[in-house]
Amino acid sequence: MQPTDPVQHQRDLQATLAQILALIEKQEVVSGLVERQETPRRELVQTLLARQQSVELRRALKLLHPADIAFVLENLPPARRSMVWNLLDERERGAALIELAGAVRESLLAELAEQEIVSIAATLDVAQIAELMPDLDPELAARVLNALDSDERRDVQSVLSFPKGSVGALMDVAIVKLRDDQDLGAALEQLRGRPALPANLDQVFIVDGRGVLAGALSLRDLLVNRPQAALQEVMRRDVVAFNTDDSLREAAGAFERYNLLSAPVVNLHGQPVGMLTVDKILDYREQQVQRERLNQVGLREDEDLFAPVWESARNRWLWLGVNLGTALVATRIIGLFEDSIVQIVALASLMPIVASIGGNTGNQTVALMIRGIAMRQITKENRRRFLAKEGAIGLVNGLMWGGIMAVVVFVLYGDAGLALVMMLAMAANLLVAACAGTWVPAALEDRGRDPVLGSSVMLTALTDSMGFFIFLGLATLILL
Amino acid sequence: MQPTDPVQHQRDLQATLAQILALIEKQEVVSGLVERQETPRRELVQTLLARQQSVELRRALKLLHPADIAFVLENLPPARRSMVWNLLDERERGAALIELAGAVRESLLAELAEQEIVSIAATLDVAQIAELMPDLDPELAARVLNALDSDERRDVQSVLSFPKGSVGALMDVAIVKLRDDQDLGAALEQLRGRPALPANLDQVFIVDGRGVLAGALSLRDLLVNRPQAALQEVMRRDVVAFNTDDSLREAAGAFERYNLLSAPVVNLHGQPVGMLTVDKILDYREQQVQRERLNQVGLREDEDLFAPVWESARNRWLWLGVNLGTALVATRIIGLFEDSIVQIVALASLMPIVASIGGNTGNQTVALMIRGIAMRQITKENRRRFLAKEGAIGLVNGLMWGGIMAVVVFVLYGDAGLALVMMLAMAANLLVAACAGTWVPAALEDRGRDPVLGSSVMLTALTDSMGFFIFLGLATLILL
Repeated sequence: MQPTDPVQHQRDLQATLAQILALIEKQEVVSGLVERQETPRRELVQTLLARQQSVELRRALKLLHPADIAFVLENLPPARRSMVWNLLDERERGAALIELAGAVRESLLAELAEQEIVSIAATLDVAQIAELMPDLDPELAARVLNALDSDERRDVQSVLSFPKGSVGALMDVAIVKLRDDQDLGAALEQLRGRPALPANLDQVFIVDGRGVLAGALSLRDLLVNRPQAALQEVMRRDVVAFNTDDSLREAAGAFERYNLLSAPVVNLHGQPVGMLTVDKILDYREQQVQRERLNQVGLREDEDLFAPVWESARNRWLWLGVNLGTALVATRIIGLFEDSIVQIVALASLMPIVASIGGNTGNQTVALMIRGIAMRQITKENRRRFLAKEGAIGLVNGLMWGGIMAVVVFVLYGDAGLALVMMLAMAANLLVAACAGTWVPAALEDRGRDPVLGSSVMLTALTDSMGFFIFLGLATLILL
Repeated sequence: MQPTDPVQHQRDLQATLAQILALIEKQEVVSGLVERQETPRRELVQTLLARQQSVELRRALKLLHPADIAFVLENLPPARRSMVWNLLDERERGAALIELAGAVRESLLAELAEQEIVSIAATLDVAQIAELMPDLDPELAARVLNALDSDERRDVQSVLSFPKGSVGALMDVAIVKLRDDQDLGAALEQLRGRPALPANLDQVFIVDGRGVLAGALSLRDLLVNRPQAALQEVMRRDVVAFNTDDSLREAAGAFERYNLLSAPVVNLHGQPVGMLTVDKILDYREQQVQRERLNQVGLREDEDLFAPVWESARNRWLWLGVNLGTALVATRIIGLFEDSIVQIVALASLMPIVASIGGNTGNQTVALMIRGIAMRQITKENRRRFLAKEGAIGLVNGLMWGGIMAVVVFVLYGDAGLALVMMLAMAANLLVAACAGTWVPAALEDRGRDPVLGSSVMLTALTDSMGFFIFLGLATLILL
């Protein structure tokens, strides 16, 4: 057997994508050629050729994991997406839908007939249906729900009842609960007798007579212990369990910190109602990382990379507006000193240095703050200590590098006063940057907002304006 | 039983930390008081009091997971770290060392006696020892290795032989291999007979007569199938397997894409030599995310938040130097147009708008590129399409928002020519930003470097310089 190497496989995917695109293009060219020949057998030839290409395309798709099919769909221009989509069977469509990025999924769902969505949903499991529901309009969602059997419907509704970002919304409801008054042999019998054990089962949960979580037993321990041993004897009692309303953000931290593979989720009564697995956490973290990357520069989570220009242009307006607003403030500050600039035009050339160095150093402080908050090393209590340290660093580096810049300025313009102004302004603006870099993320955090979001733009607005103000102000005071 | 809720527990950790700090302070105050009283019983009293506080501290520490002890150590000022450290036994020290952030770990290791490190290492498993080795100096590392038994030494050396960032370096070498010519009953017997099964075992690997990976069997399938079934009959044959030299970066992508919990790692001969588990991948991703966050702003991976000011100041020099360099280039470009600025001083006020809007929009394009590259949606083949789209967006938004700014400029300065220059310069610089935002990460990627690293600073250098040049150049051409 040749085991599949997923890394090699991922590299091959690019080739597969190219191959699929080539197949689609061939089919389009052939259809076009045939269409232009006005022969009586036109339709027949066209159908035959199209069928041959489809078989090849179908064969290529058949070899792919749903995640890979989703990858292919995301990377095709919208017109060609539907061609591949039409070659998939219902089960494959369902699996691919779940793996698709939000924007592409929405656009595909919008094109599908209601009945088709209902029958695709029938091929999915509870967690997958629950994931799909928010993208459907309410009427359609109700139809999908009604098509399920009553157990499934209840499970989907229960998962949907948990707010987005909570443990309950991401948990697996297919778990195995065993009463704590049996021995391992009986437990094994019970497991073997179940029609469908969850595929990713790695531990079973032990409950007492009231259904309250009493412990957990890994399959490993179930296997290696004597069948005569009582469950109560061999189960782990110090189980890490989440509540349904715990936040995923904090749950992810716990998974990472304690190296968990899966953990029971209990309701208010302490009864296990689901299980959170680390693969879900990995997906969640990955989404969060990518979302942060875009949010940081004012973009919505999932812009379809190949969406129409106009739609994408609008996605950037908020940010453009905010940036023009802060730039206008900086402009008005410079405007205050136009008289000074007319007298010493070198000020115009030098002022961007002070502003830009402040922005860049401030963003270092912001990055350290955000990381410290994320790793819970910076708390409300020790912020002051962090600020003191960052301020000291800003002052040390400001005086040192400001001194170096002062020499450069003196060489360029031969003006000792101007050189002194440069050094003082740089030191002062690095101090501003340290304060703003600590204060901005802290203020966002205190207001319960994500410190990653908007920290950088607020900081740069402050260091730019203050940089211009300090430099031009000092120059006006000292030199004029 | 009250199951531990890790989210609540994490919140409580802050309280625990405060409590531990209070205990340490109390002990210090008591010691101080006693020291100042020059009584003959001074030492005795001091010892007694210190012992009482130590017992309380010890009790608080005993309740903590090694990851939590590491958290406490990281959050204590260096002087107090050693106080907590001294209360831990060897096993706890070893476990905490593994969980500690790099910078804190290094500083603790530097303080320990050689013999102590050797005996701490003796409490760790192979993977943990391998993780610690790069932080030890070569002589000490050799002593640690010599203290191990020959099997362990061989395993540690084999893990260390794989380059950092490869699958081999992070795999677990404790795996279970079963020959493919037996039935489930015999396999179960064999498992039960082993002295120590890996704690996180979720699947066993099936090998043929030559030791080559033939398939895998989850413990779940081992449990539910009849004991009489042959392994060859029930094992999965389409196993996702990594090679020891696959990159962790790509392996993480595969874990996420295919929702893997664990996967075998094979050597060049296709023989399983280890197992990669998703909890390691989660830790790896988290480290990568935090490292990127810092690297993006030119900081080393792990600056100890409370390291001395001077050390931290030096950590920022490279970045300061780079930024001053690019700022100087922008300065010289403005310098070329000092004559124009003297004639129309409004240019000095308005030029930062053009530069800053270019930088901000360009960083949006950079973020989309980096995300697209990470999710492998932007390839060498479709870059041109992405560039065309970003360019079109830049032009649309440049003309539109440039038009708005033109109105603002006209209102402020009453100069139609200046307003026109503003609009044209904004549109042109947004076009530059789109090109640079696509080109810079692409160029880094092509050179095999991480596009996250330095993209932003290179982009801003380009959009700043070009922004000043375009705006001042157009103004000189049109208005003078």
